[in-house]
Amino acid sequence: MSLTKAREMMNEALNLARYAAVQGEVPVGAIVVKDGIIIGRGANRPMESHDPTAHAEIIAIREAAAYLGNDRLTGCDLWVTLEPCAMCAGAIAHARIARLYYGADDAKGGAVAHGPRLFEQTTLHHKPEIYAGIAADESAALLKKFFAERR
Amino acid sequence: MSLTKAREMMNEALNLARYAAVQGEVPVGAIVVKDGIIIGRGANRPMESHDPTAHAEIIAIREAAAYLGNDRLTGCDLWVTLEPCAMCAGAIAHARIARLYYGADDAKGGAVAHGPRLFEQTTLHHKPEIYAGIAADESAALLKKFFAERR
Repeated sequence: MSLTKAREMMNEALNLARYAAVQGEVPVGAIVVKDGIIIGRGANRPMESHDPTAHAEIIAIREAAAYLGNDRLTGCDLWVTLEPCAMCAGAIAHARIARLYYGADDAKGGAVAHGPRLFEQTTLHHKPEIYAGIAADESAALLKKFFAERR
Repeated sequence: MSLTKAREMMNEALNLARYAAVQGEVPVGAIVVKDGIIIGRGANRPMESHDPTAHAEIIAIREAAAYLGNDRLTGCDLWVTLEPCAMCAGAIAHARIARLYYGADDAKGGAVAHGPRLFEQTTLHHKPEIYAGIAADESAALLKKFFAERR
């Protein structure tokens, strides 16, 4: 994949993160892509939806699975602006996501490169290819601005 | 809580696990309880619902959060027939479940007493009280029968 294409994909996720921020939710966005087509979109919204599982990744994965009519997202890529937490990393494994592309690191709550590093655990039965740090500065800036405005 | 009361609660979760088996889904059931009242129920159904996140715990937590109109299930208990996986343990933390009661151990996919032991990780920001092994034999027998019939 070209850098331009990667940037284009992550921009879609960043736009969803910006939408989350406008709604007063922590700005994280995600998309699921199959054969170059976006088949799932998620903007983080646990508060507004009264759903603690409504992280961007979970919403995008559920939408993509409904679209495909299958609980396995074989051959699908997930793009998300922030390193996934334990819940979302678990969902990524259950969904059999082929490639995970993420933006900023999450040293406090991330479960891919931090904490339990879930995809290195043998009890997770699927491991996607992982590409980190895509448009990381932009994603981190969105989060920083969001939290600064709420202090 | 009395042993009789605990047994009664886990029986509700076991009935949901039996329902899952009838639908051809791995038999796991869960309930969310607040002040002695069941406010969320879940029978595992990822295949039927085309949703890789549709584990019993996630369904029960989403239902309870919708009922309370809050993404935080403060003061709520989760009863589930099987040790939660990473995805569900993460959701339990996000939901701020007060007490987790579970049945059978899951050495292959569990994330509470096995694998990443998520609630011992500092990157999980909430840890419930944990009570394991409630009606564990009955839960394990349901799972064993289910997989034996599919071989």
